[in-house]
Amino acid sequence: MRNKQVIFRDFLPKGAFPKESDMEVTESTVELTGAVAESSEGVLVKNLYLSCDPFMRNRMRKLANPSESYIASFEPGSPVTGFGVARVLESGHPNFKKGDLVWGITGWEEYSLLPAPGTCFKIEHTDVPLSYYTGLLVCSPKKGETVFISAASGAVGQLVGQFAKLSGCYVVGRPAAKKRSLAEEQARFDEAFNYKEESDLDAALKRYFPEGIDIYFENVGGKTLDAVLLNMKLHGRISVCGMISQYNLEQPEGVHNLMQIILKRVRMEGFSVFSYYHLYPKFLEIVLPWIREGRIVYVEDTAEGLENGPAALVGLFSGRNVGKQVVLVARE
Amino acid sequence: MRNKQVIFRDFLPKGAFPKESDMEVTESTVELTGAVAESSEGVLVKNLYLSCDPFMRNRMRKLANPSESYIASFEPGSPVTGFGVARVLESGHPNFKKGDLVWGITGWEEYSLLPAPGTCFKIEHTDVPLSYYTGLLVCSPKKGETVFISAASGAVGQLVGQFAKLSGCYVVGRPAAKKRSLAEEQARFDEAFNYKEESDLDAALKRYFPEGIDIYFENVGGKTLDAVLLNMKLHGRISVCGMISQYNLEQPEGVHNLMQIILKRVRMEGFSVFSYYHLYPKFLEIVLPWIREGRIVYVEDTAEGLENGPAALVGLFSGRNVGKQVVLVARE
Repeated sequence: MRNKQVIFRDFLPKGAFPKESDMEVTESTVELTGAVAESSEGVLVKNLYLSCDPFMRNRMRKLANPSESYIASFEPGSPVTGFGVARVLESGHPNFKKGDLVWGITGWEEYSLLPAPGTCFKIEHTDVPLSYYTGLLVCSPKKGETVFISAASGAVGQLVGQFAKLSGCYVVGRPAAKKRSLAEEQARFDEAFNYKEESDLDAALKRYFPEGIDIYFENVGGKTLDAVLLNMKLHGRISVCGMISQYNLEQPEGVHNLMQIILKRVRMEGFSVFSYYHLYPKFLEIVLPWIREGRIVYVEDTAEGLENGPAALVGLFSGRNVGKQVVLVARE
Repeated sequence: MRNKQVIFRDFLPKGAFPKESDMEVTESTVELTGAVAESSEGVLVKNLYLSCDPFMRNRMRKLANPSESYIASFEPGSPVTGFGVARVLESGHPNFKKGDLVWGITGWEEYSLLPAPGTCFKIEHTDVPLSYYTGLLVCSPKKGETVFISAASGAVGQLVGQFAKLSGCYVVGRPAAKKRSLAEEQARFDEAFNYKEESDLDAALKRYFPEGIDIYFENVGGKTLDAVLLNMKLHGRISVCGMISQYNLEQPEGVHNLMQIILKRVRMEGFSVFSYYHLYPKFLEIVLPWIREGRIVYVEDTAEGLENGPAALVGLFSGRNVGKQVVLVARE
């Protein structure tokens, strides 16, 4: 059977913006029966949805040593890998059987043979759009506070903002500069503003948060972080999820206002989904009912067809997506 | 009675290094009897020791609004204020009586009338040198980890390092570039190195911490923080006490390696002694026995005479002091 693949060509130099041509759409073949060797715990899957995530930029660099990153780099000449939703075609693993839907790390190809699907979960609830499973992994803010969300139209930002709203917080989001997105954010958050229309972020934040910010969900870094630091409240908290503005710079920007950490006694903490992976089933128990009841709205931006995957991934870094960027590989 | 005073002249411009001439030693007079008005809770004290602390630089600037700092600025034309040890001469406050020794915020003068001595504690244990009371306020690190202390010869750094040692940590300190200090640090810590002899801090840290740093006690900021960030361990913690390298800059230096906060899932948190003030008596209960038993060594650098106070305070910012800088006002 034909197996279309998105191959990662080679490591990017430091400071390079990822381009579509860093990936190549090719075709190979795959045996759909007998692909899983006997006594192997491998699983053969048909990929349905693939997730485009900013952290994938980190996997495009050559690491001097593995401790430089929390995740291994892509292998040049092999398919890109990432989160996705897939249907099991053949399984040697006790947790999965033919016909199961799974979510986890898979390949950017039509069919993947996952040698040890330890990072996969079986999808039990299919009344929620399957593609949602590619994106629902975030940390939740605490109650009763003022919250600023940068990258608010992204996969994570839109959810964190809504969780904060459900917790009774005052939430202001700054989505990428798209009117459609902005309107969506405004409906779901208390306020939203377009960063391309606010040249002075410090002034904008002072307007939206006259008393300061309790919680900043950091996904941008650089100048955005600098402006936010000036507006943090006493004992404010900064949850550091990502710094997308820095991923493609040769030298990261300098952040100048760290003295605010002392003056305001701020806590700033980085986290990675991989630390909380085991909580995913619990997380779904909470979130799926919210989605069914319409208390959470999840906006997706879908690229149709594996061959449009590279453009979708690259588009993340120019803020082209509105909502979680997914690639639809197959409708089944 | 004569009352020698150190007067704060005027606010310093941004980026100015404090100079002795920003303060002026003058003489006024004070009535030693009947100074405390009836029905007042004021206390008249004779000052014995005054504390020189880097945070005092922050009190020399004009604030646009009070929320810019955690503490009020000095008042031009009035005496400098800060922590000190003093003897009570007259008291209208129920907690203090004539003859008591107190520790708290007082004036840089021979005699101070403290209108509401809410920030003062009575000193109960006088078998430990009184001047020590001017400096013993720090947070303690956690157990069993690798610890790096910048500003290790300062009032706070020397103690934090010893507390970490007592908790079974591996401790490396970087004192200011003084041989005497360095030898002292080496005796008390596992390692100490001279930053003027280590032009590449990143390389030095990699040598002393091949496995990385669990806890960084931050008192320097800027380039030091940048190098430390590159050497933090997974789930490392940075306790942000001060950033002395930044206090006299017009524009703070940019810190470039904050992406490490995500990659290593680092927690960075600022604190202020003022949040923990109420714990001071408890802290002394623990520390005073350690000092008596010689398990903690506390190095002081004493300037004799109030008139030498300005030079002692200014000297902090060129690393002139070895150990806690105090000013001896009177031996009694």
